[in-house]
Amino acid sequence: MKYTYLGPPGTFTEAALRSLPNASGIQAMPRTTVPAALSAVRSGESDCAVVPLENSVKGVVPATLEELVTGDGPLHIEAEVQLPVTFHLMARPQQTRGDITTVLSHPHAHSQCRKWLDLHMPDVDTVFSTSTAAAARTVAEGSDQNVAAIASSAAAQSYGLDVIASDIGEHTHAVTRFIVVTGGGTPRARTGDDRTTLVVSAEGLAAGILVDILQQFSSRGVSLTGIQSWPTGSELGSYYFFLDLEGHIQDPAVTDAIGAVRCRATAVHVLGSYPRHQAGRPDSLRPQMAAV
Amino acid sequence: MKYTYLGPPGTFTEAALRSLPNASGIQAMPRTTVPAALSAVRSGESDCAVVPLENSVKGVVPATLEELVTGDGPLHIEAEVQLPVTFHLMARPQQTRGDITTVLSHPHAHSQCRKWLDLHMPDVDTVFSTSTAAAARTVAEGSDQNVAAIASSAAAQSYGLDVIASDIGEHTHAVTRFIVVTGGGTPRARTGDDRTTLVVSAEGLAAGILVDILQQFSSRGVSLTGIQSWPTGSELGSYYFFLDLEGHIQDPAVTDAIGAVRCRATAVHVLGSYPRHQAGRPDSLRPQMAAV
Repeated sequence: MKYTYLGPPGTFTEAALRSLPNASGIQAMPRTTVPAALSAVRSGESDCAVVPLENSVKGVVPATLEELVTGDGPLHIEAEVQLPVTFHLMARPQQTRGDITTVLSHPHAHSQCRKWLDLHMPDVDTVFSTSTAAAARTVAEGSDQNVAAIASSAAAQSYGLDVIASDIGEHTHAVTRFIVVTGGGTPRARTGDDRTTLVVSAEGLAAGILVDILQQFSSRGVSLTGIQSWPTGSELGSYYFFLDLEGHIQDPAVTDAIGAVRCRATAVHVLGSYPRHQAGRPDSLRPQMAAV
Repeated sequence: MKYTYLGPPGTFTEAALRSLPNASGIQAMPRTTVPAALSAVRSGESDCAVVPLENSVKGVVPATLEELVTGDGPLHIEAEVQLPVTFHLMARPQQTRGDITTVLSHPHAHSQCRKWLDLHMPDVDTVFSTSTAAAARTVAEGSDQNVAAIASSAAAQSYGLDVIASDIGEHTHAVTRFIVVTGGGTPRARTGDDRTTLVVSAEGLAAGILVDILQQFSSRGVSLTGIQSWPTGSELGSYYFFLDLEGHIQDPAVTDAIGAVRCRATAVHVLGSYPRHQAGRPDSLRPQMAAV
């Protein structure tokens, strides 16, 4: 099986991929952006893509939500993985904190470490990179000795960097949720502990419409585990709603609620029903590092 | 009056600041990040800050939402400005599109121009900067002739760059909404065409809680113009809700609805009541360029 993922090697996303139950049989193909990882699924170049969806501190990953909501061609969520996220500051061997003039990282990672940087390294410049692993690679391969990266311990290992400050994020229990995306097809079989993800479009937001939609779930005892709004692009205040529900699309209450929402919304798109991630489940080993 | 804003000079945010009715009396102080612009208000170093809040295509600006929701010390929204956003590709004089090997921009701007880049410049490298204007400045001041920036026409002018491709964003009607933030105090007087922004915290999301909260507005005829969820940071699925309402906090229906929400939510924080932006209003001249 060919899997594209948000690379380069050493990203938290790669750690999520490596934690999949079928990881040993996967040919892992890094891509530099989320849209590129998902486009490969659409074109048939890969069977699946692993991308980050949301983080418990920084919220959704906009590029992923945007591709799922508005991208061309069907994409289907096949599985989810949740991994703790721990950020380290790393530099070339022999460098110390006092040598560092520039810190490179992904904007999400940088903002989660901002307080630590303000306190310990207030004068460094910030440069953004496309991923934490790309930051580590740039530090390893660039010409400037005085640059450090904020990335995972896996990235330090991949690129031969030394960790010069450990666990510098503000939120020590931060978790990122990744999804495994395929090019459509039938939903995963019901396990009894599933999640269903859908996108609901209701042009012209009114409090009444959203209330009406959410009531279809609450009145049938279907719990929402997540809600995100995403702009339709037409004007300010016009949204898609991205909803995570407890239950499988084949559970009668879920089927029934979604049917009722279809009568009320402009469009409903079910992105997938799949087993909920559980820590300690045999199919979800949790490495001690994880994801942007 | 001292105003900090998301700089450097040439950002869309500066254009928003320059469009304020009292612009001529403002001492404009650029800051390189949204948190830095807002911190200056908290510390008393500036009277107000102008920062981007949301874009009709890319959704909220995470750094702004995060500061308003979780930052230390009171911040109060005093006014809003909406500006159209047009992105141009710019380089040093004499450079042509064929010379460019790297394109520098803010991640939001880059993603809005991705389709154009994929079509016209598929082989260029992408490097992220902290703002569109910072990208333009780097192009102007750096040592590499083959780098271009995606930024506003004001940035091209500020840094002496030539526009080598105009209006390359996907959404030609994209609009960014900026807010003017002060350090607290009394709300702006009621004008009859106002907006109220509040943050509602309801720990442990259940569809029922959100339905119940939104019903307090819809049942009183108060329209929602925006809803955003933002993670509380404690765990996946735990959110703050950031709501924009039509009306002023002193309108009886709004006062009443917010009172009812206070009884149901863990916490309610009113961020401000202020005049809605209207195109053509004398106090909101719309320059032909605008914001990240």
